[in-house]
Amino acid sequence: SFSTGLQTVTLIPGDGIGPEISSAVMKIFEAAKAPIQWEERNVTAIKGPGGRWMIPPDAKESMDKSKIGLKGPLKTPIAAGHPSMNLLLRKTFDLYANVRPCVSIEGYKTPYTDVNLVTIRENTEGEYSGIEHVIVDGVVQSIKLITENASRRIAEYAFEYARNNQRASVTAVHKANIMRMSDGLFLRKCREVAENFKDIKFTEMYLDTVCLNMVQDPTQFDVLVMPNLYGDILSDLCAGLIGGLGVTPSGNIGANGVAIFESVHGTAPDIAGLDLANPTALLLSAVMMLRHMGLHGYGKKIETACFDTIRDKKVLTKDLGGNSKCSEFTAEICRRVQDLD
Amino acid sequence: SFSTGLQTVTLIPGDGIGPEISSAVMKIFEAAKAPIQWEERNVTAIKGPGGRWMIPPDAKESMDKSKIGLKGPLKTPIAAGHPSMNLLLRKTFDLYANVRPCVSIEGYKTPYTDVNLVTIRENTEGEYSGIEHVIVDGVVQSIKLITENASRRIAEYAFEYARNNQRASVTAVHKANIMRMSDGLFLRKCREVAENFKDIKFTEMYLDTVCLNMVQDPTQFDVLVMPNLYGDILSDLCAGLIGGLGVTPSGNIGANGVAIFESVHGTAPDIAGLDLANPTALLLSAVMMLRHMGLHGYGKKIETACFDTIRDKKVLTKDLGGNSKCSEFTAEICRRVQDLD
Ligand SMILES: CC(C)[C@H](C(=O)O)[C@@H](O)C(=O)O
Ligand SMILES: CC(C)[C@H](C(=O)O)[C@@H](O)C(=O)O
Repeated sequence: SFSTGLQTVTLIPGDGIGPEISSAVMKIFEAAKAPIQWEERNVTAIKGPGGRWMIPPDAKESMDKSKIGLKGPLKTPIAAGHPSMNLLLRKTFDLYANVRPCVSIEGYKTPYTDVNLVTIRENTEGEYSGIEHVIVDGVVQSIKLITENASRRIAEYAFEYARNNQRASVTAVHKANIMRMSDGLFLRKCREVAENFKDIKFTEMYLDTVCLNMVQDPTQFDVLVMPNLYGDILSDLCAGLIGGLGVTPSGNIGANGVAIFESVHGTAPDIAGLDLANPTALLLSAVMMLRHMGLHGYGKKIETACFDTIRDKKVLTKDLGGNSKCSEFTAEICRRVQDLD
Repeated sequence: SFSTGLQTVTLIPGDGIGPEISSAVMKIFEAAKAPIQWEERNVTAIKGPGGRWMIPPDAKESMDKSKIGLKGPLKTPIAAGHPSMNLLLRKTFDLYANVRPCVSIEGYKTPYTDVNLVTIRENTEGEYSGIEHVIVDGVVQSIKLITENASRRIAEYAFEYARNNQRASVTAVHKANIMRMSDGLFLRKCREVAENFKDIKFTEMYLDTVCLNMVQDPTQFDVLVMPNLYGDILSDLCAGLIGGLGVTPSGNIGANGVAIFESVHGTAPDIAGLDLANPTALLLSAVMMLRHMGLHGYGKKIETACFDTIRDKKVLTKDLGGNSKCSEFTAEICRRVQDLD
């Protein structure tokens, strides 16, 4: 269903190569006539009333209104006590699900073919609670916090995602043999939710077993759902299988349609401004965004143009094995997008 | 240095295929004239005074005397409250370091070649503390416990290992960006210990980054040291790179020379007793054991016979891609061991 009016998206270009790859995405969206209007914002944290770190009010307002963000890489702040921007954004907008489809890209060779899986990571609690104590000198504890509500919510998201994306199975990834109560609670909620999705096959697997099987045969996996830290690990591992963070899209999903899509690679300061960056991860994240907004046709068109360009191998950025500039790679995708009309 | 007297090793054959692969190892040791005398023990936990689970006294005594154990797979106990046997053994003998060399096996094809790394896992604390609470209904916490002593001890072990095994670098694997206090303490101890090993290169890396890089190019890694859970995950992942748990040796090391070497695969009840099992993982664990005991010559001889048999591809068990029985594979290794004399 193509909408006719323009929808606003908050664009957070980010640092380093962020502005270049953001403008590449904007050009491709323009070529595709995607009905998107960008509202650019800077999210670098500021100290709010009471000394708490927060994102600038105009960025917050833009997101509150648009509900949808597209974000490039942000540099890790070095100021003492400055929070990770990624964590702050997840928290500010309660983006409770991190979704990473990992699909083999034809023409981009890795040791694996036919990878087609999605990691769904609980994004708000677990090992990321931030609660730590010194018990006595030389003895420290970190608290992993698992709640029934967050576990149910992410399990429901995973099953809904599977159903809406024609996927056959959901695997809960856990270490409930060790963390019987916390991972046990997470697992119990997954099992309960599974009862309401009889059309989706449900399995459970230990995290270590998943890692072992993943590198031996990733094609056996479909949708995987897991607590925060396990998702941090597995999502990066799976990105590695298909070519790394330069080609892997990511979405952070909250309630009521709120979502921020982002490339999860770094800011690559060494090549920033040199027209050498690869915009693929941000572009594929923007494609996820279009689908999230119901703009499937535009999403498909842009994705096809991007994959065709990579498969064709003629115009590729350095990291993809070619010699082209970011602008040339972008222009090639634009050309193909227009040809698809 | 070949010793002339016999040294005693406590043999824990284990369940399922355990007895078959243990007897395969004994035959190969006999063919190699390895100066080992086996003392067979069953370690299945019993309830001791005060209701605490413990390993049977005769197994404990044997280990206390011999200091060295070789262990096959143990089945997961199903009795309520019965502890994991692996965890109980680690605890009983304070086996604080889990060591897993992952080396590509020539002739056994996987997507990776030239893997040659060692994971060293802290085996006593961290996420395996076993401390968990229900805070309020639906809210659970698990405690990750990191101590200065255990962190220093494992870091020292890793650097000593690197030095004694002609390895160039040690990488500390952590998430100190998230668990600043606990992983921060672990990392600080690694840095401190590194100061005393100027001959070994020290680097630090986030766990997620290690996973991503590992599946893209494992040859960049050498010795990796990390807290308990990260080691659980990475050691299995790395085993996957070289062919799985059927070919990966493992050692659990304690203070004063105490150690248990084990195959970490399952009991494979479906093929137990059918002479189909692959004894390689237990055999290579036994080779690690020989080296630990200073019996390098015997270790080398057996390892060579095993690797030659696999490379030659003529006599292989099913899981290795052949049609031979466990006894035939074992006889072939014995023959080669004798030829090497
Ligand atoms: C930057 C860091 C806080 C973050 C995490 O650990 O979650 C990153 O690894 C990610 O996956 O987004
Ligand atoms: C069986 C289980 C308790 C164990 C662990 O999680 O440590 C296993 O995965 C291992 O690596 O030895």
